[in-house]
Amino acid sequence: MVLLQVARIITTLPLSLSFPFSTFVRKTSGLRSIRSGICLNISGRVASMSSSTSKEMKQIDKILSGKEDYFGGVVVEMSNEPLEIDIFAASLRASLAHWTQQGKRGVWIKLPIELVNLVETAVKEGFYYHHAEPNYLMLVHWIPATNNTLPANASHRVGIGAFVMNEKNEVLVVQENSGRFQGTGVWKFPTGVVDQGEDICDAAVREVKEETGIDAKFIEILAFRQTHMSFFGKSDLFFVCMLQPLSSNIQIQEAELEAAQWMPFEEYAAQPFVQSHDLLKCITDVCAAKLEGKYHGLKPVPTGTTVSGKDSCLYMSMADASSNTTSAL
Amino acid sequence: MVLLQVARIITTLPLSLSFPFSTFVRKTSGLRSIRSGICLNISGRVASMSSSTSKEMKQIDKILSGKEDYFGGVVVEMSNEPLEIDIFAASLRASLAHWTQQGKRGVWIKLPIELVNLVETAVKEGFYYHHAEPNYLMLVHWIPATNNTLPANASHRVGIGAFVMNEKNEVLVVQENSGRFQGTGVWKFPTGVVDQGEDICDAAVREVKEETGIDAKFIEILAFRQTHMSFFGKSDLFFVCMLQPLSSNIQIQEAELEAAQWMPFEEYAAQPFVQSHDLLKCITDVCAAKLEGKYHGLKPVPTGTTVSGKDSCLYMSMADASSNTTSAL
Repeated sequence: MVLLQVARIITTLPLSLSFPFSTFVRKTSGLRSIRSGICLNISGRVASMSSSTSKEMKQIDKILSGKEDYFGGVVVEMSNEPLEIDIFAASLRASLAHWTQQGKRGVWIKLPIELVNLVETAVKEGFYYHHAEPNYLMLVHWIPATNNTLPANASHRVGIGAFVMNEKNEVLVVQENSGRFQGTGVWKFPTGVVDQGEDICDAAVREVKEETGIDAKFIEILAFRQTHMSFFGKSDLFFVCMLQPLSSNIQIQEAELEAAQWMPFEEYAAQPFVQSHDLLKCITDVCAAKLEGKYHGLKPVPTGTTVSGKDSCLYMSMADASSNTTSAL
Repeated sequence: MVLLQVARIITTLPLSLSFPFSTFVRKTSGLRSIRSGICLNISGRVASMSSSTSKEMKQIDKILSGKEDYFGGVVVEMSNEPLEIDIFAASLRASLAHWTQQGKRGVWIKLPIELVNLVETAVKEGFYYHHAEPNYLMLVHWIPATNNTLPANASHRVGIGAFVMNEKNEVLVVQENSGRFQGTGVWKFPTGVVDQGEDICDAAVREVKEETGIDAKFIEILAFRQTHMSFFGKSDLFFVCMLQPLSSNIQIQEAELEAAQWMPFEEYAAQPFVQSHDLLKCITDVCAAKLEGKYHGLKPVPTGTTVSGKDSCLYMSMADASSNTTSAL
């Protein structure tokens, strides 16, 4: 049975594969759980197996299959089929030896959460955590003795604050029912976090709609704030966005808000809490200047795709300083 | 020995602690590895222990110690002292029961990489991955049956591109020795990733210095681009920064660059690669407008500390449209 399985593996290997010879051939019960396209190190003793397959356990040290990246590294994405720890450990060691021989640098292994039983093995083989999402953990290993130049994880959370003014010069403000402002009596702009994959302008419109029921159109980014050591030590970018309301009837999101209302802008700006915090006062001054026609922020301009083929959008000033009008470059 | 240890625990407990009674008292060999300030569920049978300690193994189901957050959740930060899996499992179950009873919502457990042996246990008890850094994994569990409102991980990587012009209208350009531009002959602005904890303006100055040896002063952000499904599926913000050079002698970072030079701006802009990519062309047009005095970007204004006490900086337009001059609001 083992000979048949080995023969099947040999006949399915791409012709371009070379056969470096390692020490032994392993019982192949774990093979199917490793992603297709595996390269095998097959023992030089395969040729002599026919007389001994029924009598001995043999091993194939399997190299984990991965894609090469642009920087001399390899990325392995494990499927979520169960895999025994000892089979994974042996594959990992064989793979590291193989990649070291090939001169690879960074090795990435993406382990779905279903394979949580393999995390400890990877760490014991020298991998460390790079990042995680709810359904996977990315571990990484730097092979050469040179400085580790692997890029860090995503570093910033991105949020928006929405400055929504109606035609009566009233600004949309809310009071939250949780968080640091709860119970303080402070009225603030609707705020929220930009989802991964979401454009900043879309996030602003979405948050206003979700929290207050108000439909709005994105106008421009007035300013943004960067701060550090925020949520779980990450850095934070907060974009102050100006929106134009398209409706007026407020319906609050009771899970998040205590109240919401249209408030005269001067009353919002005069709150002691706003006046006593430099950042809020500065933002309020920016909004006031915008209302007076004395301020130009950044507007989104679709710019096709990036050099890697992804849609992109450039936020830029559309004010032409020489003519005091808004014009495209 | 067990009675002595239990007695010691009882005498060190804060007076304000209440004593909900659970079923049994556990052998306490794992106690010291759990962070100080632990609350204990001690059996109603403690009072009768003196007659039986030498004869039976008892258990204390220990509640993991955590800090409350602003949103009805609790954050547990484990120390990196070794802890047996079965002790951790029992503590975790007892803790979850306790927190459920208290009406807690999100439960966060920060496991240092030294405690990788505990990851599988946490996942089996219903925790999932929230985020990871090289030396820890953050897992989280949502207790109530209501919608999970836990915030997501950091979603964006942030990078800069440096537009550095000298007094001869020459722009600082580089050719990289790795990555997608390697070997293409394309000359590009110096670019790089903003480190966690680093201001955008500082990152731009740092990258220029590291890659080319040029000292430079940050002037303003001209524009920024947002894109999605970038590095490991994260979103990406790329800030085009204008810098003023303070030196002229280029010394390239050989680990990253093939070459660097001062190139006439028109020659940079005329490259077929730049002309054929909308984003690059748009950025080039912004730079050209800036050189003609027709464009104002965003400058950093220190704004003291945020409402949570962290230093912050607001990037805002400093151009007053009514007078065509640059003035503070």
